[in-house]
Amino acid sequence: MNKPLNTKRSIWIDPQKSEVVYIIDQRHLPHKTIIAELKSVTQTARVIKEMWVRGAPLIGATAGYGMYFAALEARNQTNPILHIQHSAEQLRNTRPTAVDLHWAIDRQLAAMQKTSNEGERIEIAFNTARQIVEESVDSCRRIGEHGLAFIKSISQKKAGEVVNILTHCNAGRMACVEWGTATSPIYQAHEAGIPVHVYVDETRPRNQGARITAWELKEANIPYTVIVDNVGGHLMQHGMVDMCIVGSDRTTRNGDVANKIGTYLKALAADANDIPFYVALPSSTIDWQLAQGVDIPIEERHAAEVTHIYGWSEELNDMIKVRLTPAQTAAKNYGFDVTPAALVSALITERGCCEASEEGLLGLFPERH
Amino acid sequence: MNKPLNTKRSIWIDPQKSEVVYIIDQRHLPHKTIIAELKSVTQTARVIKEMWVRGAPLIGATAGYGMYFAALEARNQTNPILHIQHSAEQLRNTRPTAVDLHWAIDRQLAAMQKTSNEGERIEIAFNTARQIVEESVDSCRRIGEHGLAFIKSISQKKAGEVVNILTHCNAGRMACVEWGTATSPIYQAHEAGIPVHVYVDETRPRNQGARITAWELKEANIPYTVIVDNVGGHLMQHGMVDMCIVGSDRTTRNGDVANKIGTYLKALAADANDIPFYVALPSSTIDWQLAQGVDIPIEERHAAEVTHIYGWSEELNDMIKVRLTPAQTAAKNYGFDVTPAALVSALITERGCCEASEEGLLGLFPERH
Repeated sequence: MNKPLNTKRSIWIDPQKSEVVYIIDQRHLPHKTIIAELKSVTQTARVIKEMWVRGAPLIGATAGYGMYFAALEARNQTNPILHIQHSAEQLRNTRPTAVDLHWAIDRQLAAMQKTSNEGERIEIAFNTARQIVEESVDSCRRIGEHGLAFIKSISQKKAGEVVNILTHCNAGRMACVEWGTATSPIYQAHEAGIPVHVYVDETRPRNQGARITAWELKEANIPYTVIVDNVGGHLMQHGMVDMCIVGSDRTTRNGDVANKIGTYLKALAADANDIPFYVALPSSTIDWQLAQGVDIPIEERHAAEVTHIYGWSEELNDMIKVRLTPAQTAAKNYGFDVTPAALVSALITERGCCEASEEGLLGLFPERH
Repeated sequence: MNKPLNTKRSIWIDPQKSEVVYIIDQRHLPHKTIIAELKSVTQTARVIKEMWVRGAPLIGATAGYGMYFAALEARNQTNPILHIQHSAEQLRNTRPTAVDLHWAIDRQLAAMQKTSNEGERIEIAFNTARQIVEESVDSCRRIGEHGLAFIKSISQKKAGEVVNILTHCNAGRMACVEWGTATSPIYQAHEAGIPVHVYVDETRPRNQGARITAWELKEANIPYTVIVDNVGGHLMQHGMVDMCIVGSDRTTRNGDVANKIGTYLKALAADANDIPFYVALPSSTIDWQLAQGVDIPIEERHAAEVTHIYGWSEELNDMIKVRLTPAQTAAKNYGFDVTPAALVSALITERGCCEASEEGLLGLFPERH
């Protein structure tokens, strides 16, 4: 576990040892940076299920390597095809609602079917896994290029003064492979020498903002300030935010955006204060079958994520779980909310930017007509 | 410290031992219910400064008893008047911006000036302290009666189904003496047999909702559900909230409401979803000098309240402080925000309800013309 930290990617392989995949065990961020080695389907399934890795693109990339391990393990099986099928099921059952997970597994299964030769199958699975990763990186990079234009334009209007950007949750490189979605334009602005400062919403209950987005920005030396989720409206009322940018778990055909719970409240505040509200998303997260956001099923998570929280005790030098409420308190824990398209200034995809509407999306993706 | 818990009041005296005042040390709620005895000015100043007690009406009530202790202690001083003046200054310096604190001290000083007899002065100070307390209780009770009408009306429209009420922060009896402000109509509806259920916003960073409002409602056997501050918008979009009710730290002449940070975001969501948004306030918190909310100075608190949190470790059987962010993370901590009058459905005062506007307020308080 003494590998040097790859500061740009959330998943990588050792070129000298291609049968090992490295990930960061994100459950311990930002308190400990623990790199984990994956060598089997079972390990891969475990890290997805237990959320050592999270974020749609990263789950897809990890599952891609999981299917590569399935091909490797099939060498020693009397029925290799059965092992590959079982492995696919094992991986599918980890996070059943994650679209990218199923997409990556299906892509691997289709690719592997092209041969019955074991050596070739392993090579195909390895190359497909790498393609999934590289395509994901490329998609995020392009999202950043398109989103950068908005930051540049604000920077020019402010005559080079710092551009203040508010983001919610983590749509950064730890949710993807590299660049992130919402953070990609921010990284690219920073690299282009545009002064930016990021207000990071804590994002209760799982605190992905305070834990992971803050950690990513700190690693990248981008100025940031953590705020509790209650603060954004006040900042926007007082002209302290120039733009908001968030990711998306699922975007419907009409441009409604399902994203981490609380996104809707920030979109309302941005709208009320004439501040642009951008949503960055890889087109793989567009659900062309759903006409509108109200049709999206609402994920309810465990109440303990609300009533208890993990943090770092300086005194005990360890991560500790503490209860925040009276004992036996009822709590409701909705994973995301839906921001109506009317509150979204633009969608930023790998193909470019568009209005949050069916017309806008079909302009970029005419093949979906 | 084995006194039975007075479940209705946050401050009380022992009828057998009138030189002792009891409070609940709220820093430990809901994890420990610790009753503290006050017997001196210095102790009283400490519990206000260190926030063993908080909430404008309760701070005022505590300071009232503090001045009673000043009169008692003056008995043993060579210069009793000087001791009373010093005590007043000592109490004022605890929370310099708390309006009710200064109001209670000034009232005591004016009352005590009416005599130079020590025995009489002590009696006057004791009676004034009790009056401050009883007037505060009466004011909150009346707010509840006026606010109850809104809950009754919703209950009738819903044909007796449960009325779902969302509240933010703690405007309950632990912020006042009894009843609370925002919670007073809820208690009175519950006592009148109207089925109510309260969504309690956690209220980061100090979690007054998750800690104190939840504890109060639990003690009163009123059904409640704790939610993180991000959830309210989603609930309102889905018809799961019938009304919102919050307190107010300061209300300006035009009806703008300064309240705990995050209130504004809930008011925006209520407005967007046609849900009534009520603000309950004793008229002592109306600032008739300020024309509008943007003129209210913004309190910035310590960043450590954002980056660290206290909770109960079941494992260690103790309250523990944990860090939530990377080490040395910048954080901003604004104490409150301003909800524009246009987003407020009605103000509920001890004199009745009115539109959130100068006209509305002057209708209830014509002496302020």
